[in-house]
Amino acid sequence: MKRLRRLSGRRSSRRSEARYLLDGPVLLAEALECGARIEGVYAEPGAPADLLEDVTARGVPLQPVAQGALRKVLDLAAPQAVVAVVAMEPVGFEELCAGAIGSGAPLLALVGIQDPGNAGTLVRVAEAAGCAGVAFTEGSVDPWNPKAVRASAGSVLRVPLAVDVPTGELLGATRDRGLDAVATVTEGGRPPELTELAGASVLLVGSEAHGLPEELLAVVTRRVAIPMAGRVESLNAAVSGALVAFEAARQRRGAEPVRPEGGSVGQNARGDLRPTAENT
Amino acid sequence: MKRLRRLSGRRSSRRSEARYLLDGPVLLAEALECGARIEGVYAEPGAPADLLEDVTARGVPLQPVAQGALRKVLDLAAPQAVVAVVAMEPVGFEELCAGAIGSGAPLLALVGIQDPGNAGTLVRVAEAAGCAGVAFTEGSVDPWNPKAVRASAGSVLRVPLAVDVPTGELLGATRDRGLDAVATVTEGGRPPELTELAGASVLLVGSEAHGLPEELLAVVTRRVAIPMAGRVESLNAAVSGALVAFEAARQRRGAEPVRPEGGSVGQNARGDLRPTAENT
Repeated sequence: MKRLRRLSGRRSSRRSEARYLLDGPVLLAEALECGARIEGVYAEPGAPADLLEDVTARGVPLQPVAQGALRKVLDLAAPQAVVAVVAMEPVGFEELCAGAIGSGAPLLALVGIQDPGNAGTLVRVAEAAGCAGVAFTEGSVDPWNPKAVRASAGSVLRVPLAVDVPTGELLGATRDRGLDAVATVTEGGRPPELTELAGASVLLVGSEAHGLPEELLAVVTRRVAIPMAGRVESLNAAVSGALVAFEAARQRRGAEPVRPEGGSVGQNARGDLRPTAENT
Repeated sequence: MKRLRRLSGRRSSRRSEARYLLDGPVLLAEALECGARIEGVYAEPGAPADLLEDVTARGVPLQPVAQGALRKVLDLAAPQAVVAVVAMEPVGFEELCAGAIGSGAPLLALVGIQDPGNAGTLVRVAEAAGCAGVAFTEGSVDPWNPKAVRASAGSVLRVPLAVDVPTGELLGATRDRGLDAVATVTEGGRPPELTELAGASVLLVGSEAHGLPEELLAVVTRRVAIPMAGRVESLNAAVSGALVAFEAARQRRGAEPVRPEGGSVGQNARGDLRPTAENT
């Protein structure tokens, strides 16, 4: 149980063991279904019997624990009756880039995102929007944090993830491979539907509080800003990232011919929508 | 301080007093700026002096409290050095509908949304996407819950909010006024960009766990489903609502002529994007 507490609460323990925790029967069932490497399962008396049968049928060690035991060790609100120890299988950032180029889909790059709920939500968004994977820069939250795993609703099991990516590597690999780097900004960008997003690219999402660092903004290929009405200064990072990732998916579906960038395309913002400066 | 604890932790107390709490200097500054009815401010020694000067200059009673006193009474992680008691000013659902019709913009209707973070995020989305307001049905979380207020980043101060709206009233008022009711669903809907969303309408967003109730689905005018790749079954409610609300804003900007509904418009989903059934 001490090990579970460490894997739940400490990023360093997850990294050194290359293991993380999945809590609850729904996530465990998904892990079994997608062939995740499950090292062991800890179950309280209330865990679903048929699920536990699947666990033992797969040859995964099953450890019964006392009622309420998981609540004491897991760093989660309302822990459920079963928890699995799963092997994390991160990929390198180079590999993510190769995947993006191969599939013609974007990557999401989370730059300094601290909130585990936002991080997990964006991993789920990446899967749903058909992204090639998610990169977490140094200084971002751990995608295998238990709250992030929950918010991902199992997408951490299926989406290629690169972690601890230095900002320099992000830029270097992007440039070397000719991948467009697209920054999500609050001002000085073009609306997503007027930005070419259909191909392989890296969609950079910064934290709501700090945005993207200058060193990244200085070298990006395009800047996207969601036109905002009212007095809203920024959107939640998960919302911004979702709007850009799903607009990219929409463009890949071919729903709309995107107007070419670089020409003097007029902004369509009108009425109470704040006009947005054009990208350079 | 007992009163602050009640206003922080209990919805019933907020309702009976028609007051709620705003925590932190940023939200308090926004409340002062937009002319909110502030009944009183409680400040620990660390609160910004210039802000407190503004408070007293506005004739708002200022009550100094001991260092750490707010932490003990507020139902919030990392409470800040200042909290304001603010009058809530809800509007009726009829009034929201009139606002939507007058402005030609949609309303968001949150149906059974329980998570305060999602609720607050959607209030902010509503402001940023130029919606006419947000309705919360009976059984939804309170938008004046302290966590929702925080997640709204101050939008609760500016967006017209109707609460405790019975589902029957939602339907009745919508029908009587000829407002389109648009359901956000996971299956059996059209992609947002192929759905007419440019005018006054009610955009219904259900909880991720339960979706929208059958009685509502039976009478909606249109169904929207975000095309999803991978094995994702649903999106976070705040993400779904944001995608639909911002697509409505995009259509109002006139960025794309929407294809007429009702004809046999082919779905453009292809490749790894799950095809979506057409709306009836």
